[in-house]
Amino acid sequence: MMGAGNVGQGVWALLESTRAEILHRHSLDIRVKKILVRDASKKREKDIPPDLLTQNADEILKDKDISLVVECMGGEQPATTLMVRALESGKIVVTANKMAVALNWHLLDAAARRGNAGLHFEASVCGAIPIIRTLNDSLQVNRIDLVMGIVNGTTNYILSKMSDEMRPFDEVLLEAQALGLAEPDPASDVEGFDAAYKLSVLASLAFHARIPYKHIFREGISRVQVTDIAAGKDLGYRLKLLAVGKRQGNTMDARVHPAFVPEKHPLASVQGAYNAVFLHGDACGDMMLYGRGAGATPTAGAILSDVIYALKHHEPLYPSFQNTAELHADLSVTDNWQCGYYIRFSAANRPGVLGHIATKLGEHGVSISTLFQRKAESEHGVPIIVITHKANEKDVHAAISAVDTNIAQVESSIRVEGI
Amino acid sequence: MMGAGNVGQGVWALLESTRAEILHRHSLDIRVKKILVRDASKKREKDIPPDLLTQNADEILKDKDISLVVECMGGEQPATTLMVRALESGKIVVTANKMAVALNWHLLDAAARRGNAGLHFEASVCGAIPIIRTLNDSLQVNRIDLVMGIVNGTTNYILSKMSDEMRPFDEVLLEAQALGLAEPDPASDVEGFDAAYKLSVLASLAFHARIPYKHIFREGISRVQVTDIAAGKDLGYRLKLLAVGKRQGNTMDARVHPAFVPEKHPLASVQGAYNAVFLHGDACGDMMLYGRGAGATPTAGAILSDVIYALKHHEPLYPSFQNTAELHADLSVTDNWQCGYYIRFSAANRPGVLGHIATKLGEHGVSISTLFQRKAESEHGVPIIVITHKANEKDVHAAISAVDTNIAQVESSIRVEGI
Repeated sequence: MMGAGNVGQGVWALLESTRAEILHRHSLDIRVKKILVRDASKKREKDIPPDLLTQNADEILKDKDISLVVECMGGEQPATTLMVRALESGKIVVTANKMAVALNWHLLDAAARRGNAGLHFEASVCGAIPIIRTLNDSLQVNRIDLVMGIVNGTTNYILSKMSDEMRPFDEVLLEAQALGLAEPDPASDVEGFDAAYKLSVLASLAFHARIPYKHIFREGISRVQVTDIAAGKDLGYRLKLLAVGKRQGNTMDARVHPAFVPEKHPLASVQGAYNAVFLHGDACGDMMLYGRGAGATPTAGAILSDVIYALKHHEPLYPSFQNTAELHADLSVTDNWQCGYYIRFSAANRPGVLGHIATKLGEHGVSISTLFQRKAESEHGVPIIVITHKANEKDVHAAISAVDTNIAQVESSIRVEGI
Repeated sequence: MMGAGNVGQGVWALLESTRAEILHRHSLDIRVKKILVRDASKKREKDIPPDLLTQNADEILKDKDISLVVECMGGEQPATTLMVRALESGKIVVTANKMAVALNWHLLDAAARRGNAGLHFEASVCGAIPIIRTLNDSLQVNRIDLVMGIVNGTTNYILSKMSDEMRPFDEVLLEAQALGLAEPDPASDVEGFDAAYKLSVLASLAFHARIPYKHIFREGISRVQVTDIAAGKDLGYRLKLLAVGKRQGNTMDARVHPAFVPEKHPLASVQGAYNAVFLHGDACGDMMLYGRGAGATPTAGAILSDVIYALKHHEPLYPSFQNTAELHADLSVTDNWQCGYYIRFSAANRPGVLGHIATKLGEHGVSISTLFQRKAESEHGVPIIVITHKANEKDVHAAISAVDTNIAQVESSIRVEGI
């Protein structure tokens, strides 16, 4: 093992408690020989025998008796370099490291081929949810054109809390931090970095083409206002941080941003820290997998499932596509995708306002699905909410810019998916 | 192939359209050599070359060039006998036949061991949903204590329609039959037989112990009244036909019946002909898989995923338990399970009625969660609805029987799950 933090200790404890059953059911006698840690003297929650701990990676990498390495250090480096070395020396690698896989998948894949060793990463995306196995082993004959997920539990917890209790982002974030559900530095979660890493892996597998992380559009939830969550809810929508991948021919979308989904959509009912991945394939139709996306034990369960799978099937789990550093030359990731839009204006209280807004949207080819004028709550203007049908991203931006700010100001705009 | 009905033709067509891609991605050149049919002269929708068709099973079973048999005839026989023969002669079998697997799994399993051939049945339960693979290949280290599914699309379609449009069962059933969504003889679906076959397979895999079909309690939806769906909805519940398997130590529940689930439960939002399986494991926590449970193409996709998996992994997919005809002697399936209960009484309009009902329930250890008296709609009595906390099945029946029928009659009683 490499890493004995939260997840690493979870793997160790789960293996201890299930070793006998794994031996019984799968005839595999799995033993941890060494655990690489930064500081072997550090006090740990789980009772790991001190002689297993080492600060020297070579004690694992150069040990011919070690056939498999579980990497749960996290972070891009030194994890990537260590996994490359392990794979090159023929050791199977099982990793929970979304960042390393998203950023350096091509390096890991090449090393796995050189070493003829398996690379398994079920735990790197959505914890316990078997989405990697499903994409690789169940949906092989599908042409998947949509993968859309709630892949970050922290932000889903925050948005669920905001929606249930109508409390502002800052307050709920502080509470989540106090509960240990959000990191002291929350940017990786709330600004969508974590979700973008996961989307890079998911969309690449779904579309059989590497979608490099840098091509993923990313917008976080830190500017989400509770007034919009409330207004959306009244109109039958739930706000989620979505990771969306779509493919149409050789053009793809790959984006992480807050989005409203209709309350009847399966993703709408994913509450709290849960994750879910919704997808559409030409054979399977709509499908969704739901479960715990994080946590030491759910993640450890996914890691051990990969360990057993790798040892039973004795063969590498290569992605079935050319795993290149860059996007394939035939493909493109567009920044002019199609989705619905929720737009909240603050308008002057005078005749012709609705007409002006509707006209400007229409002039840019943006068709209105719902237009809703609320009673003015203050002197700041009359709230007008527009929900559009599917429209091109750039047309919506152009239409919004064309609205005369003396007549109506855009207070917020939120994409709508699942329509 | 054995069978060229709806699913068989779907497999043939999907293989035709994906053969080149399967060859490209998986280096497998899959060709159909023979298709066993009852009547080779029958007109079929898909354009299957007539020379592939045969009415003689031996042309498949005795052909050494045929390494894999896809069985999609349906029904217990002759499918079971043909699969046993195929497996014994070393041919991999991929089947979509829930009835044959549920009833004769031990025979198929024994034949697979004798022939050292793989037996794969992802398509037999919930069509496109990869629940078999998830149980076998992703949740290996979990002790699963709950598997609870909406596993029959026809009944979920009917119940969804009844709930959305407040129309009675008979009317919606007729409509579903006209649309081809229900069989001319609907008993297999609406009386829960189909769901019970699937539960036998699911619970056996989840609990690592064969749960024979005959141990499964079964109650269908044909007596469901729309007035109860409406009342439940008002109280925040949705009615589903659930297949429930629970395990606590060596005691298990295995039952198919209509049940209310709270509207926030992930199963509540499963609409129309969709299926979903919700489960709980000690490592993974709560998990749900959602998707198309039937249909030629979704089922064909699951079959081809098994075909590719079987050919790539070159090893049998045995269940990790002693696959016996009978329940293991150490285990028992109880008929005194625990769940909540929704009970609708029609009561006399006089003082003391609520007290009488509450007292009788209390005397039998049944604790009330919600008690709701509606305004009388007719001279037939005052509707009183009770929702209980979790209680023993037999205690609830005893409590109901103890209510004085001169004071209140039980109009309906429906179990409540997911609480």
